[in-house]
Formats: sequence, structure tokens, C-alpha cells
Amino acid sequence: MSSHHIIRDEQEPALIIANGEACSQELLGQLLEWSPLIVVLDSAIHRVLELGIKVDVLLGDFDRELDIDAIRSAQYPIEIVHTPDQEKHDLEKAFEYLIARGFPAANVVWATGRRADHTMTNITNIVRFRDQLKIVMIDDYSKIYLLPYQFEKWYTKGTPISLIPIGEVHGIQTSGLKYNLFDEALTLGYRTGSSNEADQDGFVKVSYAKGDLLMMECTD
Amino acid sequence: MSSHHIIRDEQEPALIIANGEACSQELLGQLLEWSPLIVVLDSAIHRVLELGIKVDVLLGDFDRELDIDAIRSAQYPIEIVHTPDQEKHDLEKAFEYLIARGFPAANVVWATGRRADHTMTNITNIVRFRDQLKIVMIDDYSKIYLLPYQFEKWYTKGTPISLIPIGEVHGIQTSGLKYNLFDEALTLGYRTGSSNEADQDGFVKVSYAKGDLLMMECTD
Repeated sequence: MSSHHIIRDEQEPALIIANGEACSQELLGQLLEWSPLIVVLDSAIHRVLELGIKVDVLLGDFDRELDIDAIRSAQYPIEIVHTPDQEKHDLEKAFEYLIARGFPAANVVWATGRRADHTMTNITNIVRFRDQLKIVMIDDYSKIYLLPYQFEKWYTKGTPISLIPIGEVHGIQTSGLKYNLFDEALTLGYRTGSSNEADQDGFVKVSYAKGDLLMMECTD
Repeated sequence: MSSHHIIRDEQEPALIIANGEACSQELLGQLLEWSPLIVVLDSAIHRVLELGIKVDVLLGDFDRELDIDAIRSAQYPIEIVHTPDQEKHDLEKAFEYLIARGFPAANVVWATGRRADHTMTNITNIVRFRDQLKIVMIDDYSKIYLLPYQFEKWYTKGTPISLIPIGEVHGIQTSGLKYNLFDEALTLGYRTGSSNEADQDGFVKVSYAKGDLLMMECTD
């Protein structure tokens, strides 16, 4: 995720379009331009087709009525992946699908907004894919990703930075933030590192020992 | 929270209007009608005044420019509560303000949507007020509240019910759900009880031994 990291072409992230609130056309357009594979979740397909977007994969349990034949003929060639496992959410299945295909990274849009249960589940479920897939969840206000145990990235002064622990996170050290942490713990619901910011133009460093810490880069 | 509970007039919940995404006018109107006290957070005041709503309390750190005198003359009488503590979020300060005034309950709107860091922090921070204030967070798609250790409520068959653990929750027992839990644990990011539903017209019962479990009643 660091901004000075060089990414090879074949490692560009796949794009998953989930079933929450739509983002701006501008953001979607930017992401579509660079994505080698577009995966759409379940009934989001109707909203995506209305936008005239070429879809590579439609994935879901299809428990709401979908006219697969009509979608197939409108989008030929399209891969239809039926994932009926009720124990897993469609977004989780999409991550597993991409891992199985060997993708190293995925961007996710339309996964936030609207139903709070879906938003919470979508955002927090990314932590279980720590070693398998680099996931970035993006909407018009936010960029969310799991921090590796050692992280550094260059930010301009005043950039809002929120460190959100999914559960308890221990041994957090930061530098370059307005309010730094020194071997401290954060606990969701009790003490989070929301609404911090970069103290200067320069590197922000974050490390932690145990748990899952999300970075949220958000703006109003 | 149970629907057969009789509420005395003076125990009606105060209404807090936070600074996230606006809800529908219809929902806001219903909540305003019954609220004995309207508290608005910080710069949300401009959006609230545009809607012609009578505000009782304006609370915030006012770190963005607000013309307090203009607001005071437009809304007289209004109580202005300046809460400069940078360690706490405005919503948390509003809960503490209501507790200090003796309110037993609060509804919160405009606390979700837009910035994901604010949404996450607002939703999860309600758990620390378990014994002090009954908080219900409401938007157009969701009704969110902390479950007491013993909970029961009547639902119609098929009502979507999500049990979201804030961290780890142990000893969860349910009945009346499509997928019940039997002395099980849920862990945010790894195993949540999202997208469950009432199995019949009747009571859903949830109990748990340790941790903080949120109820999310959500619809598309």
C-alpha cells in the first residue's frame, strides 16, 4: 500500500463491485480503468449493467431472482460463479475466488453505506485475509485497508488518519502523527485512534504487535 | 427496547443529530415529534437550521468556524455547550451531557454514512454507555442498539436480524432465529451473526455472558 511501491502490470488489483451504496461515477471510472478483472456481487449486477460497465464475473448465491440468461447474453462473455454457501457472505466468497485465481490484490467499491450490518461486516471481514489478499475498500469519503504489522507511508501535513482496531490491538507505536501512540493498546468501542492526522509533510509510521488494525483515510 | 414495554412521558428519549449522512425527512419528522430535547452536534447545526428545526442544545468543540451569535439569535432560546476536550468525540460528549441531565435514553440520527471512520466510531462507542443510557442509532436502513445480557422482543417472521459483536462476545444463546446459537462465541472480523432472521412470528430471545453484542435491525 505504500505510495512509493512499484506495482507490476499483472499485479494490478481486481475490482469487486458489492451491493451497498454506489460511489461517484468519477471514482468508479478511475478504478475501472486499471482493473484487469471486474467482479460484481449478486443483484448489484442490475445497477452495474445500467451504467454500461463490462463485467467479467458475476458471483453470488442468487437467492433473489436473477435472470442469468438475460445477463449472460447482454454481457457475453461473462463468467457466472454460483456460491450457495449460506455460512459465508458474497464479499468473502469473492475474496476467496480471487485468491484461488492467484490475484494478489483487490479493490472493493459499493461495500459501505446503506445497511449498517453489511457495512460493518464488509469492513471488518477484510482482516481475515491478511496474508492472502491485499484488500482496499473505497468509497467517496474513505479508503480502508488492514495495516501490516510494520507500515510506513508518506502523507501531506494535516491528512486525516484514523486507526481503527477490530477488537483489541496491542503494542501500537506510531510516529509522524499529531497524537502518537507509544506501545499502547486500542480497543474498539472503548478506545480507538479515530480522527488523528499527519503532523508534517513526511512519513507516518505505524507498527503493532498483536491484533488487527485498520487504516481509514477519510475526508468529508 | 422491548416493544411491549410501557414508557412514561418524561422518559421519552432525547434526540441527538450528529454530523454524518442525513436521513429521510419522514424518519426525522417521526423522531422529532416525540423528542423532549433536540441536541445538535457542532457544524451539523447549519444543515439542521436549513430544515427549519427548533434546536434545544448545540454541542461541540466548534473547531470549525461557527457564528454562535447568529445561531443564538436565530434559535433563541438555545443552550450552547462548548466541549473542547480533544480526547473525546462530540457524540460521546453528547451522551455524557444527557446522562448528566438525567435522561435515561437517546435516539441518534445522522451518525452513519459518509466517513467510514466516523461511522465505525459512532456505532461502536455506544457499548461503553451500557448501564448509563439506552442508545438507539437510527438511519434509513438500520436501527442499532446494544443488547442487554438478557433480551427478548417480538418480531414478524423473516425480519432481518444481525448480531454484531464489538470485539469478542462469549456464551451467546438464541431462540426464535433461523440460525440459532447455542453457547457460542462471535468475534468481529472472523465470525459475526450478520444476516440472520426471525424464524416465525414470535419472540426472539438472545442472551450472552461476556462482551458487547449489538443488535442491528436493517432493511434494504
